[in-house]
Amino acid sequence: MSRIAVINPNLSTGFTKKVGDQAKRIVAPHTTVLALNPQFGPDSIEGYYDEAFASVGLLSVIRDLEAAPEQLGDPVAGYVVACFDDTGVDAARCLTTAPVMGLCEAALRMAAVVASRFAIVTPMPVSVRPLEHLVSKYGVSSQCVVRAAGVRTLDFEGENAAMAYDALKKQADLCLANDYAEAIVLGCAGMTDIAQRLQDELGVPVIDGVSAAVKMIEALAMLGIRTSKAGAYAAPPSKAYHGMFADFAPQA
Amino acid sequence: MSRIAVINPNLSTGFTKKVGDQAKRIVAPHTTVLALNPQFGPDSIEGYYDEAFASVGLLSVIRDLEAAPEQLGDPVAGYVVACFDDTGVDAARCLTTAPVMGLCEAALRMAAVVASRFAIVTPMPVSVRPLEHLVSKYGVSSQCVVRAAGVRTLDFEGENAAMAYDALKKQADLCLANDYAEAIVLGCAGMTDIAQRLQDELGVPVIDGVSAAVKMIEALAMLGIRTSKAGAYAAPPSKAYHGMFADFAPQA
Amino acid sequence: MSRIAVINPNLSTGFTKKVGDQAKRIVAPHTTVLALNPQFGPDSIEGYYDEAFASVGLLSVIRDLEAAPEQLGDPVAGYVVACFDDTGVDAARCLTTAPVMGLCEAALRMAAVVASRFAIVTPMPVSVRPLEHLVSKYGVSSQCVVRAAGVRTLDFEGENAAMAYDALKKQADLCLANDYAEAIVLGCAGMTDIAQRLQDELGVPVIDGVSAAVKMIEALAMLGIRTSKAGAYAAPPSKAYHGMFADFAPQA
Amino acid sequence: MSRIAVINPNLSTGFTKKVGDQAKRIVAPHTTVLALNPQFGPDSIEGYYDEAFASVGLLSVIRDLEAAPEQLGDPVAGYVVACFDDTGVDAARCLTTAPVMGLCEAALRMAAVVASRFAIVTPMPVSVRPLEHLVSKYGVSSQCVVRAAGVRTLDFEGENAAMAYDALKKQADLCLANDYAEAIVLGCAGMTDIAQRLQDELGVPVIDGVSAAVKMIEALAMLGIRTSKAGAYAAPPSKAYHGMFADFAPQA
Amino acid sequence: MSRIAVINPNLSTGFTKKVGDQAKRIVAPHTTVLALNPQFGPDSIEGYYDEAFASVGLLSVIRDLEAAPEQLGDPVAGYVVACFDDTGVDAARCLTTAPVMGLCEAALRMAAVVASRFAIVTPMPVSVRPLEHLVSKYGVSSQCVVRAAGVRTLDFEGENAAMAYDALKKQADLCLANDYAEAIVLGCAGMTDIAQRLQDELGVPVIDGVSAAVKMIEALAMLGIRTSKAGAYAAPPSKAYHGMFADFAPQA
Amino acid sequence: MSRIAVINPNLSTGFTKKVGDQAKRIVAPHTTVLALNPQFGPDSIEGYYDEAFASVGLLSVIRDLEAAPEQLGDPVAGYVVACFDDTGVDAARCLTTAPVMGLCEAALRMAAVVASRFAIVTPMPVSVRPLEHLVSKYGVSSQCVVRAAGVRTLDFEGENAAMAYDALKKQADLCLANDYAEAIVLGCAGMTDIAQRLQDELGVPVIDGVSAAVKMIEALAMLGIRTSKAGAYAAPPSKAYHGMFADFAPQA
Repeated sequence: MSRIAVINPNLSTGFTKKVGDQAKRIVAPHTTVLALNPQFGPDSIEGYYDEAFASVGLLSVIRDLEAAPEQLGDPVAGYVVACFDDTGVDAARCLTTAPVMGLCEAALRMAAVVASRFAIVTPMPVSVRPLEHLVSKYGVSSQCVVRAAGVRTLDFEGENAAMAYDALKKQADLCLANDYAEAIVLGCAGMTDIAQRLQDELGVPVIDGVSAAVKMIEALAMLGIRTSKAGAYAAPPSKAYHGMFADFAPQA
Repeated sequence: MSRIAVINPNLSTGFTKKVGDQAKRIVAPHTTVLALNPQFGPDSIEGYYDEAFASVGLLSVIRDLEAAPEQLGDPVAGYVVACFDDTGVDAARCLTTAPVMGLCEAALRMAAVVASRFAIVTPMPVSVRPLEHLVSKYGVSSQCVVRAAGVRTLDFEGENAAMAYDALKKQADLCLANDYAEAIVLGCAGMTDIAQRLQDELGVPVIDGVSAAVKMIEALAMLGIRTSKAGAYAAPPSKAYHGMFADFAPQA
Repeated sequence: MSRIAVINPNLSTGFTKKVGDQAKRIVAPHTTVLALNPQFGPDSIEGYYDEAFASVGLLSVIRDLEAAPEQLGDPVAGYVVACFDDTGVDAARCLTTAPVMGLCEAALRMAAVVASRFAIVTPMPVSVRPLEHLVSKYGVSSQCVVRAAGVRTLDFEGENAAMAYDALKKQADLCLANDYAEAIVLGCAGMTDIAQRLQDELGVPVIDGVSAAVKMIEALAMLGIRTSKAGAYAAPPSKAYHGMFADFAPQA
Repeated sequence: MSRIAVINPNLSTGFTKKVGDQAKRIVAPHTTVLALNPQFGPDSIEGYYDEAFASVGLLSVIRDLEAAPEQLGDPVAGYVVACFDDTGVDAARCLTTAPVMGLCEAALRMAAVVASRFAIVTPMPVSVRPLEHLVSKYGVSSQCVVRAAGVRTLDFEGENAAMAYDALKKQADLCLANDYAEAIVLGCAGMTDIAQRLQDELGVPVIDGVSAAVKMIEALAMLGIRTSKAGAYAAPPSKAYHGMFADFAPQA
Repeated sequence: MSRIAVINPNLSTGFTKKVGDQAKRIVAPHTTVLALNPQFGPDSIEGYYDEAFASVGLLSVIRDLEAAPEQLGDPVAGYVVACFDDTGVDAARCLTTAPVMGLCEAALRMAAVVASRFAIVTPMPVSVRPLEHLVSKYGVSSQCVVRAAGVRTLDFEGENAAMAYDALKKQADLCLANDYAEAIVLGCAGMTDIAQRLQDELGVPVIDGVSAAVKMIEALAMLGIRTSKAGAYAAPPSKAYHGMFADFAPQA
Repeated sequence: MSRIAVINPNLSTGFTKKVGDQAKRIVAPHTTVLALNPQFGPDSIEGYYDEAFASVGLLSVIRDLEAAPEQLGDPVAGYVVACFDDTGVDAARCLTTAPVMGLCEAALRMAAVVASRFAIVTPMPVSVRPLEHLVSKYGVSSQCVVRAAGVRTLDFEGENAAMAYDALKKQADLCLANDYAEAIVLGCAGMTDIAQRLQDELGVPVIDGVSAAVKMIEALAMLGIRTSKAGAYAAPPSKAYHGMFADFAPQA
């Protein structure tokens, strides 16, 4: 029996439900999914500023889960940070010995297994450079390009959905034709429900970060591979925190 | 119901059984493991020359499995190439739409999730440079060093086993102390059975490639992420093959 | 008349004073220095966890300064983030059109002008990998190594100060001898007051990040080179924030 | 008196003759050329699958030449692997102390001497990514792009030859105009006979891999620079091989 | 009181005056600017050949300034090499303990502070590859592209000036649109007087190398950060020089 | 009939004779060798300062050879710059359509054919960083280290020769043992006469840059591969030169 926590770092409960549902659909029979979001912070994450606040929210959720494992029945065996920007992942690794993974890292590591070259298609041009930084951090710069579809994330829901899908598909087609991409990585967690349709229509693998991260964390948890405490992810040293963060002070 | 083929590219049946047993131990309830090796080729793989022959053996096993899925009950949903040199993996990807993965790639991709810096410890110095080439190919050069324990692979079995373990542990300790490694990757499939003991004694994550590859392939298979046929891994074009390879000619 | 804000992201007022004093000592006659720290957060920054909270504190200070320029007499012409981990710098750049710079970036960019090869000497081994990540981000991986002196930051003050200095100097000597370093970068803001002594004793340039960042920001400010709003550092889009972060919601 | 073996790893004897003729045209007076191909394997090499089989064929030819130098009059002083994919080159280096080189490596190393930036033009898009991997392996990623002309290799012979040449020249012109290429590398051994015409028409250097490899191997052979046996190219350790590969077992 | 020498390595006195005037406009009140050019060498610098001669001219000016500090009133506290190719900068660093900097290095180091991605726009295509080499040397390859406007440097003065400005602006617009550039770096010292206008019209930061280098050198000089003599920039060892270079022989 | 010019950029005629003799020993029967040095400049090249002057001397020799081919009987078919720092090579390529190559580039390109990993052993530590820069420029950073023997170049001649050889051999042994080097590259042209002895004693390939460059240039010359005039190595545009360089003005 293994428990996976899927944490949406923003406060959109609709989004939390969506990624939680997808996670539950794909986990093994004895894996339980806990889908959560923080009680404070932004409604969505668009860029570095939102990330800074969402990171603290993410840490608050993990702290609470780590502090009271008995209330859960089982301790959490692995954490998915359900955001394609991999917001706060390094800090989260310091708070737990369970493995922690974001969507971008998981999607890129899986894409590289099935394609020698691939493309991330993200909604807005403003995300291109930050995602390129992650592409470099995860070591796939020579085989991955980042392109923008030129639509808003929210356009994938509601009355603009058909238009947004078309824009995404059009950009994906350009990546296959011009960038020699052999697979497409969806550059936003909110696209999780259109992955299958796009894959069917394009005829190449389409990688959804939510699914990729849930299955990789489940695999790490099952194997007992836990976050190393020997270096950069060691538990934070004990010290005083002040003001509205007083409760977050790390304990010895 | 999902079937994973774990293919040992050399002809050591003892080794095939060992990796097969480890795979069976860790797969999900409804996953079946098929552990196989070729009928021709070398007894072990040490360097580029052995790899060339083992690659053909590997392809023969995959060809046979792909040709007769009905005999298996289920088609193969994913392939693990059970060799830390990732012998023949790119060619194997051309033969099937199922995902294919070697031990080194899997171990490195998992290690990077739980440690910011890690070391491969391999038996012999002769393997250092080839493994460094894989470290570069998989994009972790800035966070992974390769070190040799100075023992033979076969020393890990039989009367030299205690000595070999000690040499491995000594080298791993040096990596933690001098290279700031935060986790150890076992650089040989034959060490799969000592991973747990080494992890317990070192107090840092120890990653075994067999386990890592089996779980990652199982995850890819479950998600329906298949090898792209749009580029470098397209099916080989039809053409004549001659002499002892005549039967391997790709069909239209 | 130009106003530079030097923001210490932690709550140690002694440290805020120290970096403020150094800044005042080196600015041009008509530059005013404002040395500040947040009202909430950790007492010091050691690792990714502390960074997450300190980043929010840093943003709160900048937000307040940006909101009320008239209270200052002049708007802030440039921001120094007085932390060698460059905590929160990317997020801070989204909040202002003034230039923003951390200590590590400034020190590395100046070191590369006077030395073809150099070394960062930081107090603790735990910082080595995070600093290597910055070294890579700032493009000097081929000419900069990171080494640890094996002392605590706080040891540089009080009764252990002589011991700490000796350990630092010993490690710096090793960098000159073994790594062919031609200059030393001090890997911690708290060493700002021993830079001159170390430089005199070693006979090579010793770069202090506080001084480097203050002068580079002053230069950018004087030239009117401001943070680009065309891409990754655009102002955060308007949206709702909740709970204890409600006040941080970006406005249209 | 020096003997160079030019080995075409596929079974097209027409192609073997073509590269052998070119080699004979350019060697020094006292150099003898032996042009050979294996007795088994594929008729041509298109992608990773064909490469796996062609590598074994290549090794069989080298083994036979190494085993019986007295039958040749002279031992072989250097080997050219006459394939632009550099199929099996690393394994071949383990079999002999003579130097061994593929066409891609030779062409890129010569191109870099006469142009600061250049382009490989290869027939089909499917080859782009594998060649990019070689471009990276040989260290010229920052100065070399890979483009496809969109024709089949065989189109360069027979009734389509004029069309194929035009497509090649059109792509080469685009590389000069859009990629700032200063020289063109022919990405297929079968183009060896149009190099001169293309160079005359383009007015920039056009590098043919067959010529480049033959002359570099001849130079290495003349200087007595032989393949190192101290590391990755050491002779394969003695062991048993089984089935149809039994004869390939390395001897002590 | 600090003295900065701005050395134009070519013999165009009009150009020397232009960069000197810009330097004087931006230095701090107590900084003196000395604008000089050599007495021999080319009228302008276009490519590697001109650079070789201009480097010697540059060194002659520095040698004279270093030899006779008393004639200046103050010794020179820092040198700007007023050429965007950074001609002779490494050699110049061997001649003095004052810091030395070229325009390209300064502009790139400042651009990276205010933009996550930027573009150099240079007049002629022939400069693209040499500037890419500098982009790589200064570690910003992943965030900086080099583009050419297709005009001559001299076109920026006289009757073609309006046309040249339009071509520059058009290319800069393309960089913003297609390359996701967030700032523009002017790739030629002769554009120093149009930086402000271009910045106003584009609405993104426009970095002029003359201004960037003068302020960075002034900062280094003020901080007492001097060129390291411990390695690559050590004083040249004493030896005989002959012929027309006899006077340049380094003294013990 | 082909004529190769081997140009020693310094004024040591003894050294010019030594490299000329080695070149004559290894060229093909119909190749003529012209060994020359400039009439002005330094006696030896140690670092960036000497390089600047030696580059001009090198260009003067090439200019004279290019201006008066009829006096030579044949035009020069290729140039070797006989210095391991590759002084002035890029500028020289602008002066001629014949191929031009330095010793370091040639030695590294040949070493990579026979060893997967190798080391440059150079006399003095001061050369380590400049050579590392060339290692990076030529794309072999991942497989080549640079080490210093701690002796002077001149020590290889006269009464200290035995001591210098021993120091070189000791350092080479360390590279084989600690750096997994499989071959040694001699990092100074003055060691050309001890290459064979060292190779015999070490049992691994020892690459001498003089020999490597002469044979590679001879190969390029024979194949008619000439320096591209389409980009960075285009002929310098016509313009006025003044003072002692007036004669070097490029003509239309």
